[in-house]
Amino acid sequence: MKRQKRSCCPITFALDIIGDKWSLLVIRDMVLFNKRYYHEFMDSAESISTNILADRLQKLEQKGLIHKKNDENHGKKFIYSPTEKGLDLLPTIIEMIQWSTKYDPDTRAPASQLKKINQSKTKYIEAIKEKFSY
Amino acid sequence: MKRQKRSCCPITFALDIIGDKWSLLVIRDMVLFNKRYYHEFMDSAESISTNILADRLQKLEQKGLIHKKNDENHGKKFIYSPTEKGLDLLPTIIEMIQWSTKYDPDTRAPASQLKKINQSKTKYIEAIKEKFSY
Repeated sequence: MKRQKRSCCPITFALDIIGDKWSLLVIRDMVLFNKRYYHEFMDSAESISTNILADRLQKLEQKGLIHKKNDENHGKKFIYSPTEKGLDLLPTIIEMIQWSTKYDPDTRAPASQLKKINQSKTKYIEAIKEKFSY
Repeated sequence: MKRQKRSCCPITFALDIIGDKWSLLVIRDMVLFNKRYYHEFMDSAESISTNILADRLQKLEQKGLIHKKNDENHGKKFIYSPTEKGLDLLPTIIEMIQWSTKYDPDTRAPASQLKKINQSKTKYIEAIKEKFSY
């Protein structure tokens, strides 16, 4: 059964999927930090709890933002990766990075990353997408 | 007392402020729909509850994203408006609009708005900021 939507507003649509404190961090881990395994997401600085991580991975897969497949080298492990829909959140993530860099002096994005973003967001995004063959 | 931060990641910083289903919708109402009064936010299509709205307005004010001032014409009313920090979330909001427009066929952003965004995001943002004299 399709869940009732709150409105036809595109911002609402996005927030219904990524409007929480964790979903975008999981996407960030995959897209910017090349994390693939459950234990790698668990190791992030934000100390996500295992039940929240399991919930968000399932939700992101259901919403078509990530793929989950068996790891051929480790029978019991799964490999997670972003879909094109997930990768297409990069522009949103980049705008958040720039906003926080402007307003939070304690924020520490890698200087090399900021430099690339400031030079050309389009090229920065293309380079990341290329790694995932989209 | 300063709340303990989850990490120095700029995405985490942003999500600690706008990582919920409602904060950005209140910003949207102010910035894109020119809403100013409590009852106007209550009237939005998403049917926000009054306790959530009151909480988010207070939080957004504390975080420096919105101003609250007395309405000189109505003694008991308050007028809310975005600060520059709040307006600077426009690029993030716009990227969400474009992402949703690509992936949700039911999403209905006004065609004139999408046209302006596609022509020039920078000009679209400048035109909105001008209304608020920033």
